Amino acid sequence: MKNQNLTDLRNVTKESISNAIEWLKEYLTFPTISAQNSAIPETVRFVVKMIEEAKGEAEVLDDLGGNPVIYGFFPAGRNGDSTKTLLFYNHYDVQPPEPLDEWISEPFQPTIREGNLFARGVADNKGDLIARLTAIKVLQKTQGGLPCNIKFLIEGEEEIGSPNLSPYLEKYRDRFKADACIWEFGGKDEQDRISMVAGIKGMAYLELTCVGAEIDMHSSVGAYVDNAAWRLVQALASMKNQQNEILVEGFYDGMVEPSEAVKQAVRALPFNEEAVSALYGIKRPLITAAKGQDPREAMVLHPTMTICGLISGYTGEGAKTVLPKVAKAKVDCRLVPGQDPNHIRSCIQKHLGKHGFYDIEVTLVNGQKAYRSDFSHPFISHVMETATEVYQKEGILAPNSAGTGPMFEFGKQLQLPIISTGVGWVGSKAHAPNESIRLQDFEDGIVHMAYMLLGFPAALHASQEKLEGIK
Amino acid sequence: MKNQNLTDLRNVTKESISNAIEWLKEYLTFPTISAQNSAIPETVRFVVKMIEEAKGEAEVLDDLGGNPVIYGFFPAGRNGDSTKTLLFYNHYDVQPPEPLDEWISEPFQPTIREGNLFARGVADNKGDLIARLTAIKVLQKTQGGLPCNIKFLIEGEEEIGSPNLSPYLEKYRDRFKADACIWEFGGKDEQDRISMVAGIKGMAYLELTCVGAEIDMHSSVGAYVDNAAWRLVQALASMKNQQNEILVEGFYDGMVEPSEAVKQAVRALPFNEEAVSALYGIKRPLITAAKGQDPREAMVLHPTMTICGLISGYTGEGAKTVLPKVAKAKVDCRLVPGQDPNHIRSCIQKHLGKHGFYDIEVTLVNGQKAYRSDFSHPFISHVMETATEVYQKEGILAPNSAGTGPMFEFGKQLQLPIISTGVGWVGSKAHAPNESIRLQDFEDGIVHMAYMLLGFPAALHASQEKLEGIK
Repeated sequence: MKNQNLTDLRNVTKESISNAIEWLKEYLTFPTISAQNSAIPETVRFVVKMIEEAKGEAEVLDDLGGNPVIYGFFPAGRNGDSTKTLLFYNHYDVQPPEPLDEWISEPFQPTIREGNLFARGVADNKGDLIARLTAIKVLQKTQGGLPCNIKFLIEGEEEIGSPNLSPYLEKYRDRFKADACIWEFGGKDEQDRISMVAGIKGMAYLELTCVGAEIDMHSSVGAYVDNAAWRLVQALASMKNQQNEILVEGFYDGMVEPSEAVKQAVRALPFNEEAVSALYGIKRPLITAAKGQDPREAMVLHPTMTICGLISGYTGEGAKTVLPKVAKAKVDCRLVPGQDPNHIRSCIQKHLGKHGFYDIEVTLVNGQKAYRSDFSHPFISHVMETATEVYQKEGILAPNSAGTGPMFEFGKQLQLPIISTGVGWVGSKAHAPNESIRLQDFEDGIVHMAYMLLGFPAALHASQEKLEGIK
Repeated sequence: MKNQNLTDLRNVTKESISNAIEWLKEYLTFPTISAQNSAIPETVRFVVKMIEEAKGEAEVLDDLGGNPVIYGFFPAGRNGDSTKTLLFYNHYDVQPPEPLDEWISEPFQPTIREGNLFARGVADNKGDLIARLTAIKVLQKTQGGLPCNIKFLIEGEEEIGSPNLSPYLEKYRDRFKADACIWEFGGKDEQDRISMVAGIKGMAYLELTCVGAEIDMHSSVGAYVDNAAWRLVQALASMKNQQNEILVEGFYDGMVEPSEAVKQAVRALPFNEEAVSALYGIKRPLITAAKGQDPREAMVLHPTMTICGLISGYTGEGAKTVLPKVAKAKVDCRLVPGQDPNHIRSCIQKHLGKHGFYDIEVTLVNGQKAYRSDFSHPFISHVMETATEVYQKEGILAPNSAGTGPMFEFGKQLQLPIISTGVGWVGSKAHAPNESIRLQDFEDGIVHMAYMLLGFPAALHASQEKLEGIK
């Protein structure tokens, strides 16, 4: 019975796939770069139109500031279970496409090459929204309606750290109330296993600024004028040593010791160092190797401190003999449960003061706490099991991703199990030039979402009965 | 007698000044940007035409590569001393005019505002060539001929580090042979004193590159992937400490201890810390203060290591969570006599290897040795004394400038005393937007050059007699 359903879903998805790709390509033409406040209203209108085309109700929430949050609602069909609700979390904004000259095709002109679709945002996260909306259409076709209520929260500031999401979640808590949540992203690993996460790291994205003078100077005055670039370099070097040890006092404050189950799950994760090195063309050994650490543990359980950007003075070709007036660094700290982004900022500011860099200003560009869902919840198992059937290969579940997002707020406000899965793959290059998804993954991802939704009410009922049986 | 000469020179200069300004304005319309290989042939033709208009012979030397070197020759008049020869060094190329939006008038449309002439290259170094050619015309008019032979070496690659000049000087050593040399630039300080130098610092302009991977990565992999920006920061921090002490072994190799006369001259230089701080809007104390050093000594006698530029990863507004594939720094070391730019590069490369940064590549973008002329030479005194008469204010003489140029090659090949003076001023903004000279300085500079030439043979003879008397 289940398998006939799956076959039907596969067939109808195959029939719908070219329309879904056209839909996605149109969605990808919007340069919805939240960091640059680009194309927000037109993208919002397009998302609303798509929800309505899929026979859902859309509501644009914009009364609490920031880019609008889109609420989507699709009621259970006549044969469905209207007591059960699944929530999808997506975002319609994308990362800036720079560096532009490294793109083979234009970032906002979606292009198919060798079965892959290339465009900024196709993996993160526009492809997933279209896959989920298409899964709804496929269910409507095969089942005559939906097996449960389906809700969407689609925000427009994920790529800048969701700075305005929390009040929306709090005010509209009842609107977004659900039994479980599928998070925005995910995909296949280098061995083609679907890889899911039941949590997320937090983030403190900081900007460090050193102003040395009001104007750029001729570099010959370096004999007696202090140099903002040297100061910034010295300040950063005081924060992390050559062995990649973070030296900022208080940085690790509040960290929650992971449970034995979490540690076990981490040890069960696959990790292929050679494949990772080849993928990025990494020139040096992994930094975990020197410390005798397990890279899987580092990825899931350890906080990080990463320089994302440096800028000062002359950066063009050849020589310009300038003593720069200002130097800036962007530093991204990935946090684990218990760490607080504001505390991280203040520890770094204190550290700099203590080391004589009182003139370097540290600002928090964007801060989010980490979150780990209870990944022993039956909903999590249901998503995993349906994935195994659809992808015909055992999937992987990590306690949390190394990436970040506003999951902490969802957990706090909505109190529900969360798992993240999607249509990307290990070579998707999210945040980098030539971002892509593989069209076969896109099709399989639609089937998985439809099939997961089909069994969703039963899985929740079974778990309730189990819980009640225990009582 | 001398004073009647000076009065005549002043009067004829005043009569000639409007023609000289028109000549200069035409010369300034050529966008002779050597870094961009722009307008070279037409500028060369124009310079040749100007030399010929002043009744000199011009020869274009271009058989050894690079932009042509122009040789100019003006023989002594019938009443002049044809056994004595003065050489002028100038360059016809200019710095790029960027940033263009900060120019009040177009950089290659010379414009007079409030007695100042604005254009790219007017102070560095086109104004000086016209002043010198005009001085020749003035002497022809007042004296009926020149007091000595006059030669010019006018090159077209000074602003990119004169990479091809050395072989021309070597091959054409006899052409350029002279008894003394007036260098390209100079001008008035903030107290309106003419400020001259009898030497120049050297330079090793380096680019440091750390490549970490072939593509930019998502910053979450910072948990285990090494970061090119962190490595570059750590590497730079190992080269110079927070107290601005250079830590590279061998950096100071070969440095010639300055003579007591040089040290004395340095102590006699003016330096107004408050004025310097106000000029640039400097936010911190001078770095010499912390070390108990004299900023004048640092400027003239100490080598420097200055970060001119830093670039890595994302440098736009807001947050982009990227782990950069590459990080680069531009580092400008100003050298003193005895230091060698290639040795500096190799010491830094060795230092990095020794500190574990074997993967950071150091390239020499542009290298020049320092040079100090014997500034007790009577020619130097002659230039200083005539300046005092013309400008009616005591001038200032530094053993060397903090800036750089190909003076070392002149000294080595031609073995002659060199002093630099010109028509700029402290607000000339050479290398910056709105470069200018003051027209009164231009006129006075013409008079000074003419007056200096008039007494040049006698000054050299006196010194020879003195030398022979000592023998």
